[in-house]
Amino acid sequence: MSDSLKLVAFCGSLRKASLNRQALHAFVERLPAGASAQKIQANGFPDKVQAAQKAMLEADGVVLVSPEYNYGISGVLKNAIDWLSRTTPQPFAAKPTVLFGASMGLLGTARAQYQLRQTLVFLDGRPVNKPEVMIGQAHTKFTDGKLTDETTGKMLGDLGAALAFAVRQAKAAATVK
Amino acid sequence: MSDSLKLVAFCGSLRKASLNRQALHAFVERLPAGASAQKIQANGFPDKVQAAQKAMLEADGVVLVSPEYNYGISGVLKNAIDWLSRTTPQPFAAKPTVLFGASMGLLGTARAQYQLRQTLVFLDGRPVNKPEVMIGQAHTKFTDGKLTDETTGKMLGDLGAALAFAVRQAKAAATVK
Amino acid sequence: MSDSLKLVAFCGSLRKASLNRQALHAFVERLPAGASAQKIQANGFPDKVQAAQKAMLEADGVVLVSPEYNYGISGVLKNAIDWLSRTTPQPFAAKPTVLFGASMGLLGTARAQYQLRQTLVFLDGRPVNKPEVMIGQAHTKFTDGKLTDETTGKMLGDLGAALAFAVRQAKAAATVK
Amino acid sequence: MSDSLKLVAFCGSLRKASLNRQALHAFVERLPAGASAQKIQANGFPDKVQAAQKAMLEADGVVLVSPEYNYGISGVLKNAIDWLSRTTPQPFAAKPTVLFGASMGLLGTARAQYQLRQTLVFLDGRPVNKPEVMIGQAHTKFTDGKLTDETTGKMLGDLGAALAFAVRQAKAAATVK
Repeated sequence: MSDSLKLVAFCGSLRKASLNRQALHAFVERLPAGASAQKIQANGFPDKVQAAQKAMLEADGVVLVSPEYNYGISGVLKNAIDWLSRTTPQPFAAKPTVLFGASMGLLGTARAQYQLRQTLVFLDGRPVNKPEVMIGQAHTKFTDGKLTDETTGKMLGDLGAALAFAVRQAKAAATVK
Repeated sequence: MSDSLKLVAFCGSLRKASLNRQALHAFVERLPAGASAQKIQANGFPDKVQAAQKAMLEADGVVLVSPEYNYGISGVLKNAIDWLSRTTPQPFAAKPTVLFGASMGLLGTARAQYQLRQTLVFLDGRPVNKPEVMIGQAHTKFTDGKLTDETTGKMLGDLGAALAFAVRQAKAAATVK
Repeated sequence: MSDSLKLVAFCGSLRKASLNRQALHAFVERLPAGASAQKIQANGFPDKVQAAQKAMLEADGVVLVSPEYNYGISGVLKNAIDWLSRTTPQPFAAKPTVLFGASMGLLGTARAQYQLRQTLVFLDGRPVNKPEVMIGQAHTKFTDGKLTDETTGKMLGDLGAALAFAVRQAKAAATVK
Repeated sequence: MSDSLKLVAFCGSLRKASLNRQALHAFVERLPAGASAQKIQANGFPDKVQAAQKAMLEADGVVLVSPEYNYGISGVLKNAIDWLSRTTPQPFAAKPTVLFGASMGLLGTARAQYQLRQTLVFLDGRPVNKPEVMIGQAHTKFTDGKLTDETTGKMLGDLGAALAFAVRQAKAAATVK
């Protein structure tokens, strides 16, 4: 379809070679036609919080990509969310949101993702339920920074389509008084 | 407004004098005009699962009331959900849902509620984010089976209104292709 | 070593052919010499709760095996824990405990296990941290009821050894005033 | 008793007037005789990580004080933990640890504390189960930076005693081969 879809994406890892950054790249490549995603660096946040908030308020949806550190969200990503949550209007509210992540273990950031979902309750976000994309053993699924695993590619594509659909549903819901 | 609102409600406690049952009663009393709630007993479930599924499929929304036992969901309620989840079509899917609970401690079943929210991810439910109603020190808030705490009554009323609104939004969203 | 090790084991699935029951069997086979495990049926619990409590009080450690249903603990196992928690003395307190589970998905009951760990905070249990045994894609790892996956067998053996060690540590700790 | 007890304490809030900082102060004041706590600033961590690790390795126990932001751990504290977890030997391993926190809401950082407990599974920590100290409505319990609520003071004192006891138990357990 010809709808535009404006997304804002956060990556909880700051490393250039991060598997999570590569997964985000693979997600963006598979977005429906007409979609665009502005990537926001989660580092050194306080001075950039206004710009990030503005981008989020103008966006249709949010993408949260988090590595899992010590069975939880990246501290860097959590810090960025904490800063953004203090702005008014709070920019996560009512926004369709997808989460995913990559790890070398089998669970593929599952624990971090459930913590993020808990945070989104407070922020009144609209996390998409399915598909849940937990990219385990991620070091075997990327080569030279490119996703090479077809199943993962399919899931990321499905997740983008699910987000696009959730955005259309949210727009219809927003007309209700 | 004159819309009807059909709800199905589960209470995770089987005791007659349960504070959670009383809280459910207080919630139903405060629903918007035109709303009705069918209460489903969570006990002895297997033989009644078809009837419960049917009621849910015909309902606009779901109400889950759980006591907190040992920092988790009532086993009885979990068992009922587990049985229902195996029916086709799975009746929690895409249904606006509210959760609340009462306990004698300060946290008012918070831990059980976050476990229920996690279960609703898998079931593709649509849990309402706000208000979160965690009725702590509940034994001080009911007399002779009636809710006497005004703040709690207000929150339960707001929760009913939020559910009614979520149902209207879900109906608008369901028209999207 | 020649120490005896008395364990009590619960399986959250009631099915005869349950992968979790098979995993429990594989765990027991790999226990250190001198260890024994009494399996307690989690079904129809109320009338048997006294006997189960007595077995737990006499045991050195506890084994909790749970399938994951709808991203949470089996309702049947939760119900058994809820009943046992009401007995005095509460039999989970200060007992070294291991948890594991098997599922056909990739996460191998991870979500259920973290819920059980939360319950054990309230019950003052002593869950072993490592290894965490989450048997994903379990249907490919058992044949005719026997565990055939070597890596899983190794982890279950390590878990038994870790429990035996935790029991010895708990006995030393129990001498402290 | 005359045992010394060396603790390392982290506060997830950086603000001078933080209620969590005040709660940490109240905790330290109520420690058993002979105990000392070195407070480590969680800010600007990377360059100080070695010193913090060294202090932890020399300490008998760990104190984690976290505000709750957006239903989760302070990003600043999580970041500090993430940095420390990469050092060898990993300094949380096998260390008796207590957690507490203060918030203006009713739940007193409960959600953040359960996330921290999950992180401690991976870090092989030894979190004390009881008492759980969740200081809700904290703004009513401190005056001019001093704790004025007697119940909270009693719980913090009990928590310090529980930590001292857990340290003695851990020392006895550490003699086991």
